[in-house]
Amino acid sequence: MTDRLDDVLAHIDADIGHSLERLFRLVEIESISTDPAYAGACLQAAEWLADALSGIGFEASVRPTPGHPMVVGHAGGDAGPHVLFYGHYDVQPVDPLELWNAPPFQPKVVTGPNGAKQIVGRGTSDDKGQLMTFVEACRAWKAVTGSLPVQVSILFEGEEESGGHNLVPFMEANKAELAADLAFVCDTGMWDATTPAVTTMLRGMVGEEIVVTAASRDLHSGMYGGAARNPIHVLCNILDGLRDETGRVTLPGFYDGVGEVPEATKAEWRGLGFDEAAFLGEVGLSVPAGEQGRSIIEKVWARPTCEVNGIWGGYTGKGFKTVIPSKAHAKVSFRLVDRQDPEAIRESFRAYVRAKLPADCSVEFIGHGGSPGVRLPADIPALVKTRAALTDEWGKPCVTIGSGGSIPVAGDFKSVLGLDALMVGFSLDDDRIHSPNEKYNLESYHRGIRSWARILAALSEGAR
Amino acid sequence: MTDRLDDVLAHIDADIGHSLERLFRLVEIESISTDPAYAGACLQAAEWLADALSGIGFEASVRPTPGHPMVVGHAGGDAGPHVLFYGHYDVQPVDPLELWNAPPFQPKVVTGPNGAKQIVGRGTSDDKGQLMTFVEACRAWKAVTGSLPVQVSILFEGEEESGGHNLVPFMEANKAELAADLAFVCDTGMWDATTPAVTTMLRGMVGEEIVVTAASRDLHSGMYGGAARNPIHVLCNILDGLRDETGRVTLPGFYDGVGEVPEATKAEWRGLGFDEAAFLGEVGLSVPAGEQGRSIIEKVWARPTCEVNGIWGGYTGKGFKTVIPSKAHAKVSFRLVDRQDPEAIRESFRAYVRAKLPADCSVEFIGHGGSPGVRLPADIPALVKTRAALTDEWGKPCVTIGSGGSIPVAGDFKSVLGLDALMVGFSLDDDRIHSPNEKYNLESYHRGIRSWARILAALSEGAR
Repeated sequence: MTDRLDDVLAHIDADIGHSLERLFRLVEIESISTDPAYAGACLQAAEWLADALSGIGFEASVRPTPGHPMVVGHAGGDAGPHVLFYGHYDVQPVDPLELWNAPPFQPKVVTGPNGAKQIVGRGTSDDKGQLMTFVEACRAWKAVTGSLPVQVSILFEGEEESGGHNLVPFMEANKAELAADLAFVCDTGMWDATTPAVTTMLRGMVGEEIVVTAASRDLHSGMYGGAARNPIHVLCNILDGLRDETGRVTLPGFYDGVGEVPEATKAEWRGLGFDEAAFLGEVGLSVPAGEQGRSIIEKVWARPTCEVNGIWGGYTGKGFKTVIPSKAHAKVSFRLVDRQDPEAIRESFRAYVRAKLPADCSVEFIGHGGSPGVRLPADIPALVKTRAALTDEWGKPCVTIGSGGSIPVAGDFKSVLGLDALMVGFSLDDDRIHSPNEKYNLESYHRGIRSWARILAALSEGAR
Repeated sequence: MTDRLDDVLAHIDADIGHSLERLFRLVEIESISTDPAYAGACLQAAEWLADALSGIGFEASVRPTPGHPMVVGHAGGDAGPHVLFYGHYDVQPVDPLELWNAPPFQPKVVTGPNGAKQIVGRGTSDDKGQLMTFVEACRAWKAVTGSLPVQVSILFEGEEESGGHNLVPFMEANKAELAADLAFVCDTGMWDATTPAVTTMLRGMVGEEIVVTAASRDLHSGMYGGAARNPIHVLCNILDGLRDETGRVTLPGFYDGVGEVPEATKAEWRGLGFDEAAFLGEVGLSVPAGEQGRSIIEKVWARPTCEVNGIWGGYTGKGFKTVIPSKAHAKVSFRLVDRQDPEAIRESFRAYVRAKLPADCSVEFIGHGGSPGVRLPADIPALVKTRAALTDEWGKPCVTIGSGGSIPVAGDFKSVLGLDALMVGFSLDDDRIHSPNEKYNLESYHRGIRSWARILAALSEGAR
């Protein structure tokens, strides 16, 4: 296996220019899933991926859903276990567009401030660049050996960024086809630019949109100001009351199921040498927000939060308009950990909002998905092998970490398909995902491909 | 004078169709002052008015300012006093456009639910229809008698809806030209559809826009949520803290200079038979907001308020985006009464915001104008004559009332030109000014023209 792996790695190095060109083609497709105007582009991205998989010998197809389609591919392998790989081809919106230094869907390689080559464009890191590391690793194994070390199935979805509700039903409806021994989810990052990581702890999420209506029409604040209810005031009062002065979320039952992190784990985290001041300073901040008395790593990996992700109401254009609007809107998300129940928290939030509402106001709730947090046992053999492969590639011990982001599919793999999901990815904290000028380091891409080539080989060891 | 007035009134009745056509031409001009995209339309409206005044014998011209232009016209009269008439040709934005039943700048006459003919379109009531009542009254006097009963100067501005800062400097720079004995401001309403009114009490206003900046860029709420400051949270906390649980504004010094309304005045107001439930019910509300223990009339005419007129931040499109934005924005206005000092309140607000701000956040303030409240003495001879003329036209005693809206020019006439300003207008509470489907009753327009014809005659009585 070692000789074959060396050949595969050499092939990857020789072919990296073509691998990059293929990634560019995928990034150029404007697959913004949250905006219905881009539904055609999402389909185009799915078709591109199915074609790419078919081209390297997968039995691959685009699979319709009530929303954006799935891509499913299967390829036999030389040995077990059977691996199910997950990525998502959809991307975040690009607003505010004026802050991009170049068009977001015209990817290019630039040299960053630290000399590192960066692939810039929407989705380069989240998640097109990441999922392509795996596709290109399979391509290299196929090109060099004609087969894969282990049996591989692939599932790409197109609604990860839009809280789509079609993934679980699709899994439910295709349980037999998606059966495997373990899953890999490629939507997480390295610990830092030189330290590979497997993410074993993820936060879940509940998304809620609320619309508060007061008067039946917009009012002149001169004629009505001081007498008529202003829904922006109502909304601000509701949102401000979600957290107390110590940063804790006030919803009844919110912390049910949240366990304290063991001291041993906290000690491991301290060993990571995380620089809180640098983490905040990199984005222009200096004062930790949120719950008092906890480290930033604990807050982001192991504590739930509530964030207002959007708010709007009244006149928001240039100049001034003395209006008391009829409606005010907000998008609110809760990040969940451990055994918090997403639907219980959604109901607690809605009950809290209703209780705060004046008698003549009304509220509409729009649910935007919910998923529990995930914690992966440390002793899974595949995790041990994967850490070893990553340690070999990067020349530095692979660590296991948490992530504050929500990757619902990791929980869904467990609950629907019974699969443990190993979260392996190569993005970096400074990749500006969800923000203007998103990038993916060329090294992440190149060594990410090499990493997967090694992981596939490692998984087959001992299985034969 | 009486014979001549009867002839003028008959002429007005005969010519009302043409008067309406002329108003349509003015309403068709999209003179939205707050949006720079409509600067050309504002100039066009000014030119149209100057031409209209020139056409009836005024010495009229468009006068440039650093913003939208003024229109100034002068016409000699048969006797004193010398009257300075004010109106504004600019209008509010039309959003939300989808709630208009017809294009806002294509005026037409429709029959309302109560059978009254309504002129529908943006600016029909605020303020193009109103100012045209005076122009058409002058036109009738000129057509019938060849002159006006009193000397008239006219000042039309184009920044009333956008907090423009050019009116006072223009008055300062043209004090001699604008000298007169008293001013009329036509931007207020009747008490109800059958009861004419002179408004003698107006609220002032301070407009402020604030931009709270936390991180230097938008952040992913998974990677940063619970550790990084969310400027929407900061903004909601600031805005929610502006009022206490009794509805009072919390800013230090806010109520300095606010006198209690005398019991006698409150008794007069009770005599108006104002129906609080109907006032709120007409816009779908039932619970009075604002300060506890005060009537709605007192709240709107004689009490200051704070309203958030616009708020925005984060993702506000369709779907969901898990972002912690870098910035959050709000537009806030304070309605002022009595002797409240606009600039002192602006400073108190800014100091309050700064004091609430976390150490690593910053705030930008954008001032949107400020003006004090106005109270007019009840014994001015011109006020007595004007009330009598309005009583004659409408067949019902003219009342003196307050208005919750801000008409800064009324205060400016006093402070800059030393003129008392009588506020006379014919709009109704259901005119939907600043809202979709703004209208002006045809009766308001027709009898408004007749009212001004009578007022001009009444002012000349006793002056000869």
